[in-house]
Amino acid sequence: MRLLTFTPRAAEGTGATGPHGTAGTDGATERLGVETDGTVLDLAVLAGHAGVRLPHDLLSFVQAGPAARQAARELLAADPAHRPTEAVHRLQDVTPRVPLRPGKIIGVGLNYIEHVEESSRSLDTDKDLPPRPVLFGKPATAVTGPGQPILHNADLTTQLDWECELAVVIGRTAFRVSEEEAYDHVFGFSIINDISARDQRRSGQWFFSKGQDSYAPFGPVIVTRDEIHDPMALDLSLRVNGVTKQKSNTRHMLFPIARLIADISSGMTLEPGDVIATGSPSGVGAGMVPPQFLRPGDTVEATVEGIGTLTNPVVDAR
Amino acid sequence: MRLLTFTPRAAEGTGATGPHGTAGTDGATERLGVETDGTVLDLAVLAGHAGVRLPHDLLSFVQAGPAARQAARELLAADPAHRPTEAVHRLQDVTPRVPLRPGKIIGVGLNYIEHVEESSRSLDTDKDLPPRPVLFGKPATAVTGPGQPILHNADLTTQLDWECELAVVIGRTAFRVSEEEAYDHVFGFSIINDISARDQRRSGQWFFSKGQDSYAPFGPVIVTRDEIHDPMALDLSLRVNGVTKQKSNTRHMLFPIARLIADISSGMTLEPGDVIATGSPSGVGAGMVPPQFLRPGDTVEATVEGIGTLTNPVVDAR
Repeated sequence: MRLLTFTPRAAEGTGATGPHGTAGTDGATERLGVETDGTVLDLAVLAGHAGVRLPHDLLSFVQAGPAARQAARELLAADPAHRPTEAVHRLQDVTPRVPLRPGKIIGVGLNYIEHVEESSRSLDTDKDLPPRPVLFGKPATAVTGPGQPILHNADLTTQLDWECELAVVIGRTAFRVSEEEAYDHVFGFSIINDISARDQRRSGQWFFSKGQDSYAPFGPVIVTRDEIHDPMALDLSLRVNGVTKQKSNTRHMLFPIARLIADISSGMTLEPGDVIATGSPSGVGAGMVPPQFLRPGDTVEATVEGIGTLTNPVVDAR
Repeated sequence: MRLLTFTPRAAEGTGATGPHGTAGTDGATERLGVETDGTVLDLAVLAGHAGVRLPHDLLSFVQAGPAARQAARELLAADPAHRPTEAVHRLQDVTPRVPLRPGKIIGVGLNYIEHVEESSRSLDTDKDLPPRPVLFGKPATAVTGPGQPILHNADLTTQLDWECELAVVIGRTAFRVSEEEAYDHVFGFSIINDISARDQRRSGQWFFSKGQDSYAPFGPVIVTRDEIHDPMALDLSLRVNGVTKQKSNTRHMLFPIARLIADISSGMTLEPGDVIATGSPSGVGAGMVPPQFLRPGDTVEATVEGIGTLTNPVVDAR
């Protein structure tokens, strides 16, 4: 399933909240949907029509485990002719929102080999490959949705940079799980653009340079694990104003997904809805000669094969 | 007010949950209380008796803002003779729990001058004073309560270390607030023991070394802002097995609380229930000659003047 949180475009800005949804930042009602065949199906409406109980937001849906996914699949398998019309939206008539608010976002630095090399030239990091995953945190307040602005505050940074990453969404609590068991704890996959203000590192720590509001664009959908044949063989790429800056494949990760989950969960409990941003390939702005950074007016598109494209404008936020 | 989350000792382990509380990890019902005159008053029971609506957990209470605090103060001001007996517990008959689960915990590194010096000798940090606050994140899953074990996993670390810190609990959303406005956004103060596995830094990043489960003992109470005359003049100290290791005063912070709030909120929204761990004075284990680290069987006590003592045993968690 390709799950998303969305607002019907007609309902935007009305301030109305329905019986099931919560109000988005613009007052429109956020709904849980499934993208299928060019349409978005409203799961709460389908469930209500069928008399089935189902969580009405994507975080609760993830937390509800396999039973909720099975119930949703049965709703989708039912005869389309019997779907209530208010459950069916054309894809172009909905606005995707932040899929869910993660409890924590764990970033992985220097996880693509060519990016280790470019970072050592431009970002004072070690030129040797890291012996263990380089982990850092981004807070939930950094998350923003598809189409929402990346905030450029020229009073704080002149080095706003991009990083296209495959996001792993945790589905089942993981503590000290082996690499063999790791995928049993994965709900699905999405895209994160790991935005950094390179000049806001603090004595080398990345939390403030990578953790500011809007520095974690996330979405547009979460694709369940069963629909991604091999998450370690996905093309990923990023464009700024239509010009390709990053282009690689997840097979070039230094520490693969299963290793990351085993390593993190060796000390830190991963909870349903937590997100691992699995690292960025080469082609970041800091690594260009001369360096290139984001400016107000730019548009950034991050694409991961099988998931989609996450597009965000950069806006002046002084 | 000295607010806490507690379980009545008699109710522990019964698995019962009342109409208001949520179940703690041992199945006992967690309740919102106020410590006063050697007793703990159950705020939900007092509110129910008086027919007043009040949130029943401390995070919701913080989020509810000044109206909830005013309502609680009025309940406490009422004639003690009219309190229902089930609202009153002797202090020794309750177990304090994690006060609340923060949305994010922002740590401040190298924020006491002598600690900058000892860290440069023992932890590869710069010996110059940092020009800006050194910020890092600890996830909510790292939080543990008073009396709960600090997990020592000898397979992961031989360098488990302590750091006694004043914790600032945010009460009102803060984004781009000035130093002058900063305290308007503070709910109150508590204690955090910023535990680190010094040997689990990852290419210099502190997230995994400081973010593992149980590495953020927090509590035992949150004291509201009005009851701390000057948070920048509080003695703080830490003992391991009764031996004093750290002893300082918050006046020695390099970046004071108001500056930290202004700096963090320049880029990152602080939300009600978020916690800032304001940094540790000198006397950490890594800075001793020879270094001293925590071992299973140790007991760590962190004390901050006007708040109390946060005590945690270290246990073998292999």
